[in-house]
Amino acid sequence: MKLLYPTSLVIDVDSLKGFSVDLQPYDAKAATIPSQHHDADILVTWTNTVDNLKYAKANLTKLRWIQSLAAGPNDVLNAGFDPSQTIVTTGSGLHDHTVAEHALGLLLTSARRFHEMRDYQLQGKWPGHLGGPQPDRPKDRFTTLRDARVLIWGFGNIAKCLVPSLTTLGATVKGIARTPGVRNGIEIYNESSLPELLPNTDALVMILPGDASTKHALNAERLKLLPKHAWIVNVGRGTSINEDALAAALDNEEIGGAALDVFEVEPLPEGHKLWKTKNTVVSPHAAGGRPQEAEALIAYNLRRFIAGQDLRNVI
Amino acid sequence: MKLLYPTSLVIDVDSLKGFSVDLQPYDAKAATIPSQHHDADILVTWTNTVDNLKYAKANLTKLRWIQSLAAGPNDVLNAGFDPSQTIVTTGSGLHDHTVAEHALGLLLTSARRFHEMRDYQLQGKWPGHLGGPQPDRPKDRFTTLRDARVLIWGFGNIAKCLVPSLTTLGATVKGIARTPGVRNGIEIYNESSLPELLPNTDALVMILPGDASTKHALNAERLKLLPKHAWIVNVGRGTSINEDALAAALDNEEIGGAALDVFEVEPLPEGHKLWKTKNTVVSPHAAGGRPQEAEALIAYNLRRFIAGQDLRNVI
Repeated sequence: MKLLYPTSLVIDVDSLKGFSVDLQPYDAKAATIPSQHHDADILVTWTNTVDNLKYAKANLTKLRWIQSLAAGPNDVLNAGFDPSQTIVTTGSGLHDHTVAEHALGLLLTSARRFHEMRDYQLQGKWPGHLGGPQPDRPKDRFTTLRDARVLIWGFGNIAKCLVPSLTTLGATVKGIARTPGVRNGIEIYNESSLPELLPNTDALVMILPGDASTKHALNAERLKLLPKHAWIVNVGRGTSINEDALAAALDNEEIGGAALDVFEVEPLPEGHKLWKTKNTVVSPHAAGGRPQEAEALIAYNLRRFIAGQDLRNVI
Repeated sequence: MKLLYPTSLVIDVDSLKGFSVDLQPYDAKAATIPSQHHDADILVTWTNTVDNLKYAKANLTKLRWIQSLAAGPNDVLNAGFDPSQTIVTTGSGLHDHTVAEHALGLLLTSARRFHEMRDYQLQGKWPGHLGGPQPDRPKDRFTTLRDARVLIWGFGNIAKCLVPSLTTLGATVKGIARTPGVRNGIEIYNESSLPELLPNTDALVMILPGDASTKHALNAERLKLLPKHAWIVNVGRGTSINEDALAAALDNEEIGGAALDVFEVEPLPEGHKLWKTKNTVVSPHAAGGRPQEAEALIAYNLRRFIAGQDLRNVI
């Protein structure tokens, strides 16, 4: 049995040894894969080029399993792989910590106004209004996570990773997901509760996936339900927000601000209005992009694959 | 018995009722205090002007106790109050959460390079090198708190507040204080261990007080011990760093960067070199400035004062 692992990230190959599997590196950025590896059974993918994946689809005819290290399978499916013929597993979970950390950073940037401090610094000016004695948790502003009401829309593994950081800082956290209930100590509602939840939110963290069901989930109507001081942090997918409605809400100061790591079109095009809307922080899809402990997932699934057991993260 | 509380912050006076004490508000920014209050026994201070404190010293001759809500007693002592004649208690502890939150925000800004993203945003440019697939925890950079080696220099209550946030994000934390040992699960060393600790530090968080013993604690010699990628976060006092040595280390890229909330002279003067040194984040002494639950401390000390018991935070 042969497994091809990509050289597009550092893999600790020793962590994959011990199975009767031939482990071989390959270049995920190359237009082809050497012919001696066309007999591979298993392909691990990470930031492969479109050409590379299409070449694999056409030439690696014995492939039975693809382990992507990305959170979603889009690139693999777009290359033409059929999950009913080839098992496809994702790297869901490998990005939870990194995305959660970035979301926390964007929340603190928003609350502490590090972006505004930077604007002053670049002019060599001291932003005195942001320092010195401050009103303690003023009702009409989002200035700290302490006692802040944080609503996480899209309550999966990333949210579960983020919750301890938020509660440690004293935030009150609620979640929105398809299935209501209590998970990780957090009350989860479904979207039908948005009309009651949004008006009582200081910071809305969006971690929705990018499928058709989430398209423009945050629209003009729902934006109007947020308090005027509320900030939005989006580390999910850009398509989950109607950007025209968001830009209008920002410029009309109907919300406090938005710290966005994802956009409908990426890179955010030159001249796009979100570069300059009020109280907007632009982050270049930087939340994830660093799979954590990929070897553990690969080894876990490899053992199960050899044993004929169900794999983790099958799509 | 009469207690004067300042109107310079919102005090929930109901939380102070129940004692045989006359509770009266006063304007801490005014040059005088009305003569009918010159018989006060207790003065609570917060951001009082120099004139106001000097007036109090000259006219409130029956004063037996001053409860400052600031972390330190400097302004009260500078006005001429003598702790051997008037009990002086500080607001130590009221600022732990806010300062810890700010320090965390500056650490995440440093690791995630939000300041650099902002510079690109202001030019309407996508900083592609900061987003997309990234090397996972490269050895020569500080890119995440996960597995980062964080050294907290000045391990008091603020540090204890900060530690859970750091460990939740996966950092390895060590501390430096006068008394070594294990506190809050963290190994504490004294300064004699700096030569071994500094070379193994990814982020140095300074929370030192501003007295003579900490003057230029971080000097050129110690800066040279840090790895080239290490960041410094200072939320203690500006005097604890030799700013000339720091500026040189930044511009020569001998350290990764510095996120500074405090400076030797504040506001940081126009034209000061730290506005423009490489990889520098300037925050306008914004970490604290919002006493948390001041009423609880006042009520706690008020009961003890009436009962003739020792007060908390006596200097």
